[in-house]
Amino acid sequence: MNDYTLYYWPLPFRGQFVRAVLAHAGATWDEPSMDEVIALKALPPQEQPVPFMGPPVLVDHAEGVTLAQMPAILSYLAGKTGLMPEGPAQVALTLKVVDDANDVLDDITRFGGRSMWTTGEWETFTEERLPRWMQIFEALGARNGLTEEGGTLLGTPAPGLADIVTAVLWFTMAEKLPGIDAMLEAEAPRVAALSRRMMATPALKTLKDDTDTRFGQAWCGGMIEASIREMLG
Amino acid sequence: MNDYTLYYWPLPFRGQFVRAVLAHAGATWDEPSMDEVIALKALPPQEQPVPFMGPPVLVDHAEGVTLAQMPAILSYLAGKTGLMPEGPAQVALTLKVVDDANDVLDDITRFGGRSMWTTGEWETFTEERLPRWMQIFEALGARNGLTEEGGTLLGTPAPGLADIVTAVLWFTMAEKLPGIDAMLEAEAPRVAALSRRMMATPALKTLKDDTDTRFGQAWCGGMIEASIREMLG
Repeated sequence: MNDYTLYYWPLPFRGQFVRAVLAHAGATWDEPSMDEVIALKALPPQEQPVPFMGPPVLVDHAEGVTLAQMPAILSYLAGKTGLMPEGPAQVALTLKVVDDANDVLDDITRFGGRSMWTTGEWETFTEERLPRWMQIFEALGARNGLTEEGGTLLGTPAPGLADIVTAVLWFTMAEKLPGIDAMLEAEAPRVAALSRRMMATPALKTLKDDTDTRFGQAWCGGMIEASIREMLG
Repeated sequence: MNDYTLYYWPLPFRGQFVRAVLAHAGATWDEPSMDEVIALKALPPQEQPVPFMGPPVLVDHAEGVTLAQMPAILSYLAGKTGLMPEGPAQVALTLKVVDDANDVLDDITRFGGRSMWTTGEWETFTEERLPRWMQIFEALGARNGLTEEGGTLLGTPAPGLADIVTAVLWFTMAEKLPGIDAMLEAEAPRVAALSRRMMATPALKTLKDDTDTRFGQAWCGGMIEASIREMLG
């Protein structure tokens, strides 16, 4: 029996944040098949274990709790596994990092592929909003003393939820999508370095290798991943 | 001197959730002009009081804290003003309600008006996702015993963050956008009733009247509000 069950697509994207927190905490989990995810998502809300629109959905078997919404799941797991910082302001800034990461995913995928990218819109996005998102993470880190040696919100001696989320967001995008790496290095060098350090820790390195084996170069999947790759190509 | 400063557009939409929590808590706040919001948003991230992409931004003057991201702000205020339930699972479900509300706003506005509605897409949305969102709130309330007399997550004896967020989301949409009221009554009668009860409490009633005076029938604003109204009309 595993500690948790994670319902998510066979992709990194939003589910990778949940996997990373579970892996970092040394928890065990299983992931039902894509058919089971589809079936759960298609149930009427009143028949779902928690009424939800889209995965990830996490079941905590020991507590008998089922949750949806990536930020809510991460907050729950961070509280349970000691990944939240001390003090309400630092907690709120950690949640802000999670919400920002969630928005970056929505932004680059146009809210789950609601429309495909055109060349002109992609150029504007990669000249304005995408570098600005990187700068936002960099500025938040810098504001809180982030260097190669540490920091008070990102880069804390014991990594917290904000570190894991930042690393999973930017390292995964930089690795899976061509050209993002160079932009991140230029716009957010401290965040790029932090993300590499975090993903080199044993639990996250093992997760990364496992993810590469399971999903190859896939990131968000679907027609919108094809659209992003067409723009990057 | 007010307790807080809220930077947000002169509209209900995402900022209304922050206003409602502040009003319910009896806090005082000022709202800088739209020009000031635009100027703050346009600053380089390293010069912003908190690096952010879009408002709401909240300044807590007593604590010297500045926050962005609606869910992070609400979580912070709920912790400070006693609006969070007891127990990690109930807290996580409250955060899920906030995240769902945030997603409903993104969904109906196509992530801030990234594209406009077409008749076919709007029909699909209002036949599938929008009623499903309502059913998700209804099922979560029902699962937790929501009736006219009370409930354990929504409709608790002392209203919590989940009640305020649910009410602000659905009452405001139902009031500002024609046709939503009837759909909510059909798909989520308990949520519709809870939302009316909550918005009739003195602090939220005063806020509602003030909002109507300030913003009239405007909801999310911009070209996307015109697109939504064209579809509804």
